[in-house]
Amino acid sequence: MTKKLIVVILIISAFVAKSQPNAKPIIISPEVHADNKVTFRLYAPAAKEVKLNTQFEKNPVSMSKDERGVWSITLGPVKPDMYPYAFNIDGIQVADPNNSSIFPNEGFQNSLVEITGSSPLVHTIQNVSHGTISYRYYHSSELGTRPVVIYTPPGYEANPKAFYPVLYLLHGTTDTEETWTKVGRANIILDNLIAEGKAKPMIIVMPYGRAYPVISKSSGSLRNWDNLQEFKKDFFNNLMPFIEKNYRTINDKNNRAIAGFSGGGGTTLYFGLNNTDKFAYVCGFAPGMLKNEFDRNNEVAFSNPEQVNKNLKLFWIGVGKEDGLYGVNQEFMQVLDQKKIKYENLVSDGGHTWMNCKLYLSTIAQKLFK
Amino acid sequence: MTKKLIVVILIISAFVAKSQPNAKPIIISPEVHADNKVTFRLYAPAAKEVKLNTQFEKNPVSMSKDERGVWSITLGPVKPDMYPYAFNIDGIQVADPNNSSIFPNEGFQNSLVEITGSSPLVHTIQNVSHGTISYRYYHSSELGTRPVVIYTPPGYEANPKAFYPVLYLLHGTTDTEETWTKVGRANIILDNLIAEGKAKPMIIVMPYGRAYPVISKSSGSLRNWDNLQEFKKDFFNNLMPFIEKNYRTINDKNNRAIAGFSGGGGTTLYFGLNNTDKFAYVCGFAPGMLKNEFDRNNEVAFSNPEQVNKNLKLFWIGVGKEDGLYGVNQEFMQVLDQKKIKYENLVSDGGHTWMNCKLYLSTIAQKLFK
Repeated sequence: MTKKLIVVILIISAFVAKSQPNAKPIIISPEVHADNKVTFRLYAPAAKEVKLNTQFEKNPVSMSKDERGVWSITLGPVKPDMYPYAFNIDGIQVADPNNSSIFPNEGFQNSLVEITGSSPLVHTIQNVSHGTISYRYYHSSELGTRPVVIYTPPGYEANPKAFYPVLYLLHGTTDTEETWTKVGRANIILDNLIAEGKAKPMIIVMPYGRAYPVISKSSGSLRNWDNLQEFKKDFFNNLMPFIEKNYRTINDKNNRAIAGFSGGGGTTLYFGLNNTDKFAYVCGFAPGMLKNEFDRNNEVAFSNPEQVNKNLKLFWIGVGKEDGLYGVNQEFMQVLDQKKIKYENLVSDGGHTWMNCKLYLSTIAQKLFK
Repeated sequence: MTKKLIVVILIISAFVAKSQPNAKPIIISPEVHADNKVTFRLYAPAAKEVKLNTQFEKNPVSMSKDERGVWSITLGPVKPDMYPYAFNIDGIQVADPNNSSIFPNEGFQNSLVEITGSSPLVHTIQNVSHGTISYRYYHSSELGTRPVVIYTPPGYEANPKAFYPVLYLLHGTTDTEETWTKVGRANIILDNLIAEGKAKPMIIVMPYGRAYPVISKSSGSLRNWDNLQEFKKDFFNNLMPFIEKNYRTINDKNNRAIAGFSGGGGTTLYFGLNNTDKFAYVCGFAPGMLKNEFDRNNEVAFSNPEQVNKNLKLFWIGVGKEDGLYGVNQEFMQVLDQKKIKYENLVSDGGHTWMNCKLYLSTIAQKLFK
């Protein structure tokens, strides 16, 4: 579930009881205060050193232990947003055991803390009409049963004759099909923008980007060539037909968009720019790329820039000034300039973060299908 | 996402990179072998002692460290099922950082390992028609925006004139609205039983049982009186009207069931037995009860046992021989016998576990709405 304040729990569970000492105090963590300060707590009497690793601090911060064995630290005031964090206990990074709001990821465990502030942000859950998030399975003869998460906008169920445009939204490397909703709040951002009349009602399709089990989960970025080839087959041959069969989608390029973050951003550009007959909107959020792969990955697009410009209604790239991928994105845009391929560009503050993903999605959602 | 083998990841993430030592080896955990043995691994070079805590072993098991700092243990062969587990690192219980399959809970963190075995179990994901899991929000004037997870059976979307019976399915204390699908595999169990013609297509409604924020998350079991009163208002005044407005439900008692586990099992009996005009099927899975509350919690039911017997088509209680709640459930059934209230009873092996929850749900699902 999504919660404004993630708080404590007293556990009454046979399984837990047998594994935790009786003396364990009740822990509230994180505790967000009215002044936007946040207190993090962890019960770890035997630990030698506990640090907090959070994306609103540049470096890990040491926590202090009290006489009960509870480590804590209070930070802030923190700029309102939703941030990942983790504890580092004697060198081991773990999620906060007292917080059920977890960052879905296959490579690390982080918890999430939301500082709501005094006025709602674009990703704040409000009392507006809410869309539906659906968890579905589709079948691939090569990859087996594949998960996909789908957002349908408010009114979708109540208007059975209405048809909608579709945004395909890809996660980053090691993320899962749940990361865009649970960390990126894609559904809430759209609920709020639709309620304000700033975005068109649309369907958002959030697939799982690793072509597992053909491509191992230890095989690097999603935009790696082997994964691109396998996922491309799955995306165009299985996923898109499943969506267009099971949802009331408008099936032409002007009503199809593709966007993605990091490794999924690299995938987005590869799928989108080489298939402008299928997507009139292509948006990279800090897309993962390598300079020596520009020509290979954009072979179709670069062979006919005029066609790309003619087909695309929006080609958009967003990247943070402190993002490790800032440089390669600047180089890519120089190549686009040379090829005379048109694009829009947002250079934001910050780095390779889901705070920026929320900013980028809320920006492009207002530009789509108009 | 759900996966048969939960395996590794190589992380390419600025956030993670800064917080984990470069020397960290690639970890595969858990690794399920063809002979149903399982290897668990954890990289923790600075830890003094690491134990594995899993529900297929009675007690925590010590793991061994290699020269790289990787702790591991191989156990089994293990009886095929899906089990929760956690690592205990120098006294701190944490989920497996290399496994994205996590037990949704507000009070502890566990990971999940699935031993599939050689033939599919009732909760094994198979290539059959799959229903949809929807994440929705509904509004409560007292509790704010409330989450609920809803299963609609295969064919629901394709048959817009079909109406369905409804099972309300409640989680245990400190669980969340996601626990019945992610740990209990309620959707997969129904997909499989429906495919085999063993269960009727039905809608399953899985609400969040804590009346938060009116009732604090640290306030004990869901079946505590204060939570019962607040959640009862929400359930009958907000949740049921939301479901019956937004889903094609058959709205009479013979097409409504309620079931729940542990604290949610206590809630189930309180809601169900006192409202047999609304529910003809009432099923407790190791329901949480206190003997001194029997009379108070069953006031309506006990005042008119004949009405209960007349209204209910199924009153069912399942509990494990090793469950801490076995005794109080036996006492409750003695009272039911004295009152001449009819019920069915399954005494299973095992304890207060989600392995038993899957057994109980797959048992009662074949008895509902027939």
